[in-house]
Amino acid sequence: MPFNVAVCQLAISDNKEQNIGQARNQILQASERGAQMVILPEMFNCPYDHEYFVAFAESYPDGPTVKMMSATAKEAGVVLVGGSIPERDGEEYYNTCFIFGSDGSLLGSQRKIHLFDVELETLVFKESDTLTRGSTFRVIDTPFCKVGVAICYDVRFPELARAFVMNKAALMVVPAAFNMFTGPAHWELLLRARAVDNQIYVVGASPARNPSARYVYYGHSMIVNPWGDITAKAGAREDIIMASVDLGYLQQVRRQLPVLEHRRTDLFELKIAENIS
Amino acid sequence: MPFNVAVCQLAISDNKEQNIGQARNQILQASERGAQMVILPEMFNCPYDHEYFVAFAESYPDGPTVKMMSATAKEAGVVLVGGSIPERDGEEYYNTCFIFGSDGSLLGSQRKIHLFDVELETLVFKESDTLTRGSTFRVIDTPFCKVGVAICYDVRFPELARAFVMNKAALMVVPAAFNMFTGPAHWELLLRARAVDNQIYVVGASPARNPSARYVYYGHSMIVNPWGDITAKAGAREDIIMASVDLGYLQQVRRQLPVLEHRRTDLFELKIAENIS
Repeated sequence: MPFNVAVCQLAISDNKEQNIGQARNQILQASERGAQMVILPEMFNCPYDHEYFVAFAESYPDGPTVKMMSATAKEAGVVLVGGSIPERDGEEYYNTCFIFGSDGSLLGSQRKIHLFDVELETLVFKESDTLTRGSTFRVIDTPFCKVGVAICYDVRFPELARAFVMNKAALMVVPAAFNMFTGPAHWELLLRARAVDNQIYVVGASPARNPSARYVYYGHSMIVNPWGDITAKAGAREDIIMASVDLGYLQQVRRQLPVLEHRRTDLFELKIAENIS
Repeated sequence: MPFNVAVCQLAISDNKEQNIGQARNQILQASERGAQMVILPEMFNCPYDHEYFVAFAESYPDGPTVKMMSATAKEAGVVLVGGSIPERDGEEYYNTCFIFGSDGSLLGSQRKIHLFDVELETLVFKESDTLTRGSTFRVIDTPFCKVGVAICYDVRFPELARAFVMNKAALMVVPAAFNMFTGPAHWELLLRARAVDNQIYVVGASPARNPSARYVYYGHSMIVNPWGDITAKAGAREDIIMASVDLGYLQQVRRQLPVLEHRRTDLFELKIAENIS
């Protein structure tokens, strides 16, 4: 059975409580419109900036953001892929996605594996100044399908998407915060390429654009089908987009063009470290 | 030093001699316009059809197509990446690219690794009905840079491009014959994605469109830089396109966004079989 996936392209402020409230509102709205799975953007409870990563961080399961997600998933009756938030674990901070079932239970979590340490023409940013990279790799079981979560910069690494698919993921969720330099250049390209190479659904979830902020989000959340078609796309402003995920269509694409079967695993073998799940 | 790469988007007929002559003309023209490396499309000496694969096949180094390539590379003073031709080796037929230096010597060859066996809505085709898949993997040393050759359907497999780059290729050449169904959907996407993921130059070389043929080529040969920008692009008709390949720019992209350095080889390791080069 096809199911409806929605992305809440949230406007994010420097008020944590407001961010949490707005996320809750939008999840409930998406559910009212028929969404069965709701996806939030990267760092949806805080501005994309080091000081906020530390100040707004939470430890599972105690923080208010995590509690809101669990309660709202249950209230709305949806699977909630909670974008990401800054997670504190002992002395370490991570960029982490928590995923909840429609009964409010935690289905799994995924920490950002590749940190965004770049020196672009228009932007120098080192996530590793405050964040620690995750070294776990998980495919999340949901009642609809298996889901892999690649957080923002993670999407640039084809190995990760491939590893998700080798582990039966049919949907890759990309909570992200691309900027005005990398966004126009690569955002749509990367999401569509991962979908086409792996013949899966790919959902990119960005915050809404915030022109006055130091780090300006690109926006343009989108949902891509396994043929690479964009089936829903937001503009720059706060919005909810929705599209159907149809595993029957996914199988049809794979029958027509059996790329995954044709992989030359005798020549090129992707080995996934055994101790990471 | 930047160097000029040209693609000859050749019109292909069912007359082998004419195809060879036209390729020679176009290589010389590209050279006159300043090309230092010239790239031809997939199966440039024959229509994309089983009967022609067999009838037009040649064994290295005896066939007229191979001899023309060697002689014309020397006459034009260019590195020639000879698209592909049907190659006979004993009882087997391959889809093979031969690469020549500007002295006419063979720099290397690459057989198509992944065969195009598909059942598209608009096209059923099984290359494996006549062709054997190659199982060699080679990065070709040229005086300009190392080059990997992915023949058409090979471009759909990110592992291959990654393996080329792990072996220091700075340019991936894709002689191809996408059709009117897969072309509009995926041709540009795949070329740009391979370039961006691996921060290399990618050149896609298609034959010109032939609306009256059974298998209609998409055309739209293009040259993509390591940021994913298209720096030259053909339409559907016979044409020569040219752009500069600048390894300094490639390094600049890699400094700004060190994707290759950031690969988590501790988590995901691409193993290349040892006996294939």
